[in-house]
Amino acid sequence: MSKLITPYETAAWLMERNNFLIITHRRPDGDTLGSAGALAQGLREQGKTAYLFENPEVTPRYERFVKDYQISGDFEAENIITIDTASVNLFPKSAAQFNDSVTLCIDHHKSNSLYAGFTCLDADRATCGEMIFEILMTMSGSISSITAECLYVALSTDTGCFSFGNTTANTLYVASLLVQAGESNRELNKLLFRTKTQGRINIESMLISGLEYFFDDIVAVATITREMVETSGADEDDMDDIAAIPGSVEGVYIGITIRELSSPDECKVSVRTRMPYDAQYICSEFGGGGHKLAAGCTIDKTVNEVKEMLLSLVEEIIELESK
Amino acid sequence: MSKLITPYETAAWLMERNNFLIITHRRPDGDTLGSAGALAQGLREQGKTAYLFENPEVTPRYERFVKDYQISGDFEAENIITIDTASVNLFPKSAAQFNDSVTLCIDHHKSNSLYAGFTCLDADRATCGEMIFEILMTMSGSISSITAECLYVALSTDTGCFSFGNTTANTLYVASLLVQAGESNRELNKLLFRTKTQGRINIESMLISGLEYFFDDIVAVATITREMVETSGADEDDMDDIAAIPGSVEGVYIGITIRELSSPDECKVSVRTRMPYDAQYICSEFGGGGHKLAAGCTIDKTVNEVKEMLLSLVEEIIELESK
Repeated sequence: MSKLITPYETAAWLMERNNFLIITHRRPDGDTLGSAGALAQGLREQGKTAYLFENPEVTPRYERFVKDYQISGDFEAENIITIDTASVNLFPKSAAQFNDSVTLCIDHHKSNSLYAGFTCLDADRATCGEMIFEILMTMSGSISSITAECLYVALSTDTGCFSFGNTTANTLYVASLLVQAGESNRELNKLLFRTKTQGRINIESMLISGLEYFFDDIVAVATITREMVETSGADEDDMDDIAAIPGSVEGVYIGITIRELSSPDECKVSVRTRMPYDAQYICSEFGGGGHKLAAGCTIDKTVNEVKEMLLSLVEEIIELESK
Repeated sequence: MSKLITPYETAAWLMERNNFLIITHRRPDGDTLGSAGALAQGLREQGKTAYLFENPEVTPRYERFVKDYQISGDFEAENIITIDTASVNLFPKSAAQFNDSVTLCIDHHKSNSLYAGFTCLDADRATCGEMIFEILMTMSGSISSITAECLYVALSTDTGCFSFGNTTANTLYVASLLVQAGESNRELNKLLFRTKTQGRINIESMLISGLEYFFDDIVAVATITREMVETSGADEDDMDDIAAIPGSVEGVYIGITIRELSSPDECKVSVRTRMPYDAQYICSEFGGGGHKLAAGCTIDKTVNEVKEMLLSLVEEIIELESK
């Protein structure tokens, strides 16, 4: 049974303890890494000992925000903290040893399974970074430029530089204080949002040039074959959120991305919709799931077969809707 | 001789007067239109009469934020106000009649030529919207959801949704208050930043697939022919900031975009650089100008000739730099 505590109580909890090991989640993003880096740094500024558990999947883009907090020398962890991690299934494989011994979890996912001894959970926050900000401000009343930089990474990446629907007034307010403390938003935005790899820019261009429009252009379908990925030079990191492109075209209400997986008989489908169309319903017909406006499924057919199946379902849905 | 006044003095100035006609600048963007709409709305909420001077170049994207403030019925303007307009040369053609009669200019451009009777100028603000916010808050102590929406358009569009280098702590702070007052950032971000026309997405894809890399990939060159523009279906609006793409590729320090103009013997060149390379220097060699990291010029040669000339200059510069 996990005990729920507020960010203020969490600050007190941390001040009373020492020797922290902080775990980030599998396939780590800017929020888990930036928040963890900021917490380690903030705890050290309070004279505590804090390290990050090594996450083997950290990508080059985020390396610099965590590298100073890797375990070095003798260290006996007394308190295991997880950040932005809703369940033990999301731990990096090497962290499975801590499945039953997490003392504190700080998270903003409603779906949190309450696996930790103490849980600081605020599902109204767009980012974990905002929670860490609250905790560190309670602990010390100020934010150093190093923690501000880490937290800016957390807030900005989890909200698409404040453009996603999850961005709240609080996100922007905290961001303004971070920019005041760190003044690093100019350089960080360039790195995080205004630079694309050749692989990414190539696969985007190939995807767009192959876009097909249907039903008076309210449906757009993109297909990504393994050959396209290879030719483009894109890696898995480059494929992040690429499924948003078909649905971002003006006038499109149903954006579908079909990606050929390791076998040509297996495709991953991502559907993005605008109201009134229901992406979850479309994907659930093929055993998948997700949210109302963004869902996915895997279908064991070729790209062309998958396209046909989806289009025939979508045609029915559009007809029903127009009645 | 213009008298400089602060936003607080401007609020008092406005409260003492009535019957305002507000002028936006030529090729109007979100900052001039959103700020003007917010000011008209805010003045009306104070019981004043305020209209926007019709700007024939308003694009469909911004139509809804200004349409309620068009002159209707009998209206005799007593005070002419310009917004975000550094000099009379930037007036819409039809506003030339006001060249010598602007009573108040509210602007954030250092280059403002002080053409108005009173000038409220703050060159430290990323957007004019932040200045209008300060003025309206001084006037009434609060912000309605309608003015908040207009001002959110101003702040977000002039900063690339808070990603450009001009974004300050104040921009984010004001944005947080606007989101609190208007709660419209989700819908507006979708409209302004997460939607692209088919024409735009097509021309981007064509530009990227034709990108050429030189000198160990630190130079990227894009060419845009008239045929490409026609085939893509892109209009002039869709070409906005397209020259940023070559320079946004990871590892590229000099991004060049060559666009064929109405004659095949005339090209517009845009150069974007990262330090230490100087875009202004490159363009000045061909009679152009701009800033250190973004500059342009027009060259009366074919696309291929222009490319050759630029590459040979760039090669020299890179060789000098590497010494």
